[in-house]
Amino acid sequence: MGDPAGIGPEIAIKAVAFRELPSDTSVAIIGDISVLRHAARVVGFTGTVHKIDHPGQAEPGGVYVIDKGVVSPGAYQTGTVNAVCGRASYLYVLEAIRLAKSHEIDAIVTNPINKEALHVAGIDYPGHTEILAHETGTSDFSMMFLLEEVAVVHVTTHCSLRKALDLITAARVIRHIRLLHTTLVGLGVDRPRIAIGGLNPHAGESGLFGEEEQKEIVPAIELGKSEGLNVSGPYPPDTVFMRAFRGEFDGIVSMLHDHGFVALKSKNFNEGVNITIGLPIIRTSVGHGTAFDMAGTGKASERSLVSAITAACRLVSHATPRG
Amino acid sequence: MGDPAGIGPEIAIKAVAFRELPSDTSVAIIGDISVLRHAARVVGFTGTVHKIDHPGQAEPGGVYVIDKGVVSPGAYQTGTVNAVCGRASYLYVLEAIRLAKSHEIDAIVTNPINKEALHVAGIDYPGHTEILAHETGTSDFSMMFLLEEVAVVHVTTHCSLRKALDLITAARVIRHIRLLHTTLVGLGVDRPRIAIGGLNPHAGESGLFGEEEQKEIVPAIELGKSEGLNVSGPYPPDTVFMRAFRGEFDGIVSMLHDHGFVALKSKNFNEGVNITIGLPIIRTSVGHGTAFDMAGTGKASERSLVSAITAACRLVSHATPRG
Repeated sequence: MGDPAGIGPEIAIKAVAFRELPSDTSVAIIGDISVLRHAARVVGFTGTVHKIDHPGQAEPGGVYVIDKGVVSPGAYQTGTVNAVCGRASYLYVLEAIRLAKSHEIDAIVTNPINKEALHVAGIDYPGHTEILAHETGTSDFSMMFLLEEVAVVHVTTHCSLRKALDLITAARVIRHIRLLHTTLVGLGVDRPRIAIGGLNPHAGESGLFGEEEQKEIVPAIELGKSEGLNVSGPYPPDTVFMRAFRGEFDGIVSMLHDHGFVALKSKNFNEGVNITIGLPIIRTSVGHGTAFDMAGTGKASERSLVSAITAACRLVSHATPRG
Repeated sequence: MGDPAGIGPEIAIKAVAFRELPSDTSVAIIGDISVLRHAARVVGFTGTVHKIDHPGQAEPGGVYVIDKGVVSPGAYQTGTVNAVCGRASYLYVLEAIRLAKSHEIDAIVTNPINKEALHVAGIDYPGHTEILAHETGTSDFSMMFLLEEVAVVHVTTHCSLRKALDLITAARVIRHIRLLHTTLVGLGVDRPRIAIGGLNPHAGESGLFGEEEQKEIVPAIELGKSEGLNVSGPYPPDTVFMRAFRGEFDGIVSMLHDHGFVALKSKNFNEGVNITIGLPIIRTSVGHGTAFDMAGTGKASERSLVSAITAACRLVSHATPRG
């Protein structure tokens, strides 16, 4: 459900009640039923919000809630940072992880939570991903962003550019190529076409504008090819994303945070999906935040959540059956 | 006219004959009249292509050509790299510079030329800008890109990222802030709102992801403010362009080639305009290349050229009269 004070409850109802999800998809919303019933009124859903005890009771097309009984609408102000909501968001995701670990659900789709709300609740994680990593004992994970059927992973993200330059090694690049390939196959893409963005302007212009392409990136691409992957590049950072969005590539390995994110945010970023790769469980997430300014109005778009649910379904249907 | 073998002749005719340009704008096309008459047939223009001797003879709404008599359509193959076309493009721009220097024209608008064609003609300039800089004795110039009323200048462009990191100094940043401000005022923008993009992810996240913002960029912004400029930032590179395109800023100082160009090329880049700032003459240019694959079809869009002519007119009308 995400943070009760954000747009999560409203978009959860809108996605499940109003939108057509992949067939045979049952969604169990993990949250608080009083909050969700209030959200249903806000978004104009007049059907039943069912309370269930186990995810197996949820049925396709209906609104089913696993009620954690943590908060109710009177306990906080919508659209603000609240300790009670931070704590609630944390308990919802813990429950989702428990259900995924015990194979009672096939995938987790997360709605936005608020870092500050977690913090004032005394829960020191920056977000869902770190909670999921901790609870599943995962240290090696990455985020993949999926927008308009183009998948993007970043070789470097939250560090200075000076540090990023040193982090760009052939080993790190090939690891991201393989992760992207595996995830795209998991999404049902046959022989995914993976493009590698360069680091320097014009992808180094044959060594004139930097050596990293020749020294680190090209060897990783060659290794990927030798493993049978459909990988090419390095391409100039300022054209590779455009080419992918025109249909030339399925996925891009971006060297820098602000190659990929400048390109993604120039498109309708808020409608994209995050996929955490490297976790032992399938997890997708909306691409946007709690949008406190829109919470309570019923106007927030459920499009990203529907995409996140759809991506999770694709990953489930192409996953190898559990042993 | 640009390279005779490219789309230049066709879009020149389309812009001047078919599109409404700012009133009282007379355009003299500097090129070859036989090539332009052929292009007129290709694009379906049945009016007169006038031959003139001096730009003063050109009148608003008509097609007027200063005929350099260098090439004719039979002398080269459209859509290919030709020495004769490289030489012709060079002679056209030399003539334009001569006319600008003698104040017979108010501004130069350049159509695309081809670096390789210049090279095979034995003319070793990478493009128009360097020819203009050389002929006017200018060493300190920059390119400004204008797209959908958003202007972008880059503090660093064609060098490695490692070198770019060292080039980002307060002195260089303030110089670009001032250049952008002056050019926006020259375009008629009142008190232009200038946003500074950061260098590091999240603009350094308060020093956590790099020190350049605090050490070099913020001091330049403070200096700009103390000079009365309407300048703010540094903003995260992945949101600042989006905010400008939504109308929040008139211009952006981008630290890296692949912040600005990833953002610009995610939009309809080919419809943008280049403005060379720092030259003693007004010069704008189309944002695209010779597009050899489209040359001869009449299908190339004249939109960027019309924008370039319009931008030149704006710069002329706001320029301080020559002494």
